[in-house]
Amino acid sequence: MRIDIITCVPQLLASPFDHSIVKRAKDKGLASINVIDLRDYTTYAHGQLDDYAYGGGAGMVLMPEPIANCIMSLQSERKYDAIMYMTPDGEQFSQSIANRYSMVENIMILCGHYKGVDERIRQKFITHEISIGDYVLSGGELAAAVVADALVRLIPNVLSDETSALTDSFQDGLLAPPVYTRPEVYEGMSVPQVLLSGNHKAIEQWRNDQAIERTKTRRPDLYQKLLGS
Amino acid sequence: MRIDIITCVPQLLASPFDHSIVKRAKDKGLASINVIDLRDYTTYAHGQLDDYAYGGGAGMVLMPEPIANCIMSLQSERKYDAIMYMTPDGEQFSQSIANRYSMVENIMILCGHYKGVDERIRQKFITHEISIGDYVLSGGELAAAVVADALVRLIPNVLSDETSALTDSFQDGLLAPPVYTRPEVYEGMSVPQVLLSGNHKAIEQWRNDQAIERTKTRRPDLYQKLLGS
Repeated sequence: MRIDIITCVPQLLASPFDHSIVKRAKDKGLASINVIDLRDYTTYAHGQLDDYAYGGGAGMVLMPEPIANCIMSLQSERKYDAIMYMTPDGEQFSQSIANRYSMVENIMILCGHYKGVDERIRQKFITHEISIGDYVLSGGELAAAVVADALVRLIPNVLSDETSALTDSFQDGLLAPPVYTRPEVYEGMSVPQVLLSGNHKAIEQWRNDQAIERTKTRRPDLYQKLLGS
Repeated sequence: MRIDIITCVPQLLASPFDHSIVKRAKDKGLASINVIDLRDYTTYAHGQLDDYAYGGGAGMVLMPEPIANCIMSLQSERKYDAIMYMTPDGEQFSQSIANRYSMVENIMILCGHYKGVDERIRQKFITHEISIGDYVLSGGELAAAVVADALVRLIPNVLSDETSALTDSFQDGLLAPPVYTRPEVYEGMSVPQVLLSGNHKAIEQWRNDQAIERTKTRRPDLYQKLLGS
């Protein structure tokens, strides 16, 4: 999978893709993540990329031409399965969207900054408007990093058995059960006895019960959806 | 505001806090964000921090002692208003949570990695379990960066008038209206005439109509909540 991230603050994304699971995926040749500097595509003097909003009011808006130049230049090199724009008014990103897009070959992600991009760019180029949650960030960069991380770890063979995604929250519609590791007793708190029993059937049952209980208590909305499905 | 982020992969967060609005907040002395290496607090050989889960199955779990050492060391230096743990089964992060926590002084954020932290740490130390959305990431690092960014930009005097947060999505329960900037006509697509009219009342009305329409169409759940409030 190739993910091309277009941003006016490329330095912000210098570190997140060179460690942990994303680095492993890159080292194995299973993913390539490219941070593209919008400034290389501007036609304005002094590298200008944004301007005041028509109609007045607070906030700078990214101008259409540099973004169009950048997107069209990338499109001339390969076909993209999706051109995403990170925006709080987009479709809510979820594990099922992550599962779906972990299968595709080429994804482009456009990051807004401050007030976002000119609406005409969204109409002309964007195939998927995505929000990572109901809150506002300085720009789309961290949101793009979140999407890239969620997708890359699901690419087949990226995770080893030790870190399998199959037991993650949301994969079966439930939150994950609690986890414990050494030591067996920590500050007077013991690991639940069943986890030390070696009885795999009982362990499986306990984990399932805990996952259901946790989902019921913490996310009744998810639990209702599960009952209805 | 001081935000201390505890992680076993500190290098992953080397770049996100040194640019754009967060950098501005730091330069103004309004925010300090510290990435703390959990490895400095381990009591195990070779810097070990995680181990297999009791009961078997996929995924490594962060052990309790290094985390406890780290948290207690930080607590001995100052009082924390919140000790957050980033986890998909936590409370859904939102703009109203961001507004609330942008007012406090000291926040600690614990990042899990792979399968997360030993449950006993959550019970003993964590005051707020927070999820940035219904999807799974390699670790809590990017989630912590998202929370830090959302909070810091709301600290009074961080944003200048040009980038005010008051017109952001969610601040009035609505998605933000479309934005436009130069040129007036781009590839045959014109900026809506009203935005060029100089009629501030009409512009305000148009933006409000667009915000309502966009929220109704894209997020009927938010719109219903607004009607009920």
